[in-house]
Amino acid sequence: MTKVKGRVAVVGLGPGDLDYMIPAVYKAIQGAEVVIGYKTYIDLIKPLLEGKQVINNGMRKEIERCQLAVEMAEEGKNVVLVSSGDPGIYGMAGALLEVKEEKNSEIDVEILPGITAVSGAAASLGAPLMHDFVVISLSDLLTEWEVIKKRLYHAAAGDFVVALYNPKSMGRTTQIQEAVEILLRHRNEETPVGIVKNAKRHGEKVVVTTLGKMLKEEIDMTTVVIIGNSNTYIKNGKIITPRGYSL
Amino acid sequence: MTKVKGRVAVVGLGPGDLDYMIPAVYKAIQGAEVVIGYKTYIDLIKPLLEGKQVINNGMRKEIERCQLAVEMAEEGKNVVLVSSGDPGIYGMAGALLEVKEEKNSEIDVEILPGITAVSGAAASLGAPLMHDFVVISLSDLLTEWEVIKKRLYHAAAGDFVVALYNPKSMGRTTQIQEAVEILLRHRNEETPVGIVKNAKRHGEKVVVTTLGKMLKEEIDMTTVVIIGNSNTYIKNGKIITPRGYSL
Repeated sequence: MTKVKGRVAVVGLGPGDLDYMIPAVYKAIQGAEVVIGYKTYIDLIKPLLEGKQVINNGMRKEIERCQLAVEMAEEGKNVVLVSSGDPGIYGMAGALLEVKEEKNSEIDVEILPGITAVSGAAASLGAPLMHDFVVISLSDLLTEWEVIKKRLYHAAAGDFVVALYNPKSMGRTTQIQEAVEILLRHRNEETPVGIVKNAKRHGEKVVVTTLGKMLKEEIDMTTVVIIGNSNTYIKNGKIITPRGYSL
Repeated sequence: MTKVKGRVAVVGLGPGDLDYMIPAVYKAIQGAEVVIGYKTYIDLIKPLLEGKQVINNGMRKEIERCQLAVEMAEEGKNVVLVSSGDPGIYGMAGALLEVKEEKNSEIDVEILPGITAVSGAAASLGAPLMHDFVVISLSDLLTEWEVIKKRLYHAAAGDFVVALYNPKSMGRTTQIQEAVEILLRHRNEETPVGIVKNAKRHGEKVVVTTLGKMLKEEIDMTTVVIIGNSNTYIKNGKIITPRGYSL
């Protein structure tokens, strides 16, 4: 008898509004027997979960969730592992693959992308990302702060548009200040900055400000910060990074 | 009599497969009177266009399309301007806003995001983007090559994962070679590289190789190239950039 081979689809919910989740993810959830995810994200897709085995648990349990997903797929189950945003961008895709390889598992894995926070935030701000950009997470939970600082320097010196994920949390407040200091060494105080809380989901709050003033605004873990390059400007409340067209 | 105020929704089709286009874009297209876009992209959504005025034109006519979109919205029309991928990432969002401002137009503009090429390509490669990354376009049509080279240097020196858009075209073949040279000054030849042609659409081709060997592969304008950071590895054909979890 051949063992039934299960699978894990690691899917991206996007920002959290079902209108921003791709149909491929919708179909994967519909076809799943088991759906595993962080409680807050599971709640976002509750209408889709009837009749399914649902496993949700708390924050920072990423590895536990991945282990469960792989184990249940090994038992032949069709598992969906839920990630917010895009599972491939600071999401669950990497952890799942790392756990799978550590277990030498041969289950099938599929990654289904989602709208990542920077795309949602940019859409609400205008067009800040129209030129080369970097995405940096300011969380030093898994990365040394010195590495992040070095990247901030190169992002600033390379005149990239800079998108910051996880800019600040209750217990982590100095990183965003240092980031602004580093950027101010290479860009002037008037550089446009967009701060978007809950981008493209319930409770969205959009602030357009400047590098010199941004620290006065509310910033937390649900916020994405986008800092313009040396050509970025603000017009009628929208942030625009010109691509270089002659109009 | 008040003038009827039209609107333009700049929408992202994502990679080109309707299963990867968000419902918010689907609804915007359904509700539009006029749909404007580059011919290739218009063809991808043909089933949705019945009964609508459709305006498609050729490559490099971006500004013309934006001018038309703004003019028709000024006449009170509900216009959708189509972009591939995410309109906010090297897409039509910026050009539309620039044209609108140049015309001092007061039409409503909404940007609806899409799955950008780097998200689609990453999903097919495994999990290469799990840490800080840069997105750089190698097209020097609108940007001086010296600026792009400087950014490549900072991307390499900052140990970012590097995603290259527009890596090569029929008439532009040396930039990708220079990019590899710059990266090789900071990363070793064994650095994992993913090359994805037609990511997440018909005709997808995925190649997993290394920085030392990548130039032997087919690369063109429909290709996204993702180069790992110093921690990225290849396992069972998938590219994984570890986030830093202890397993």
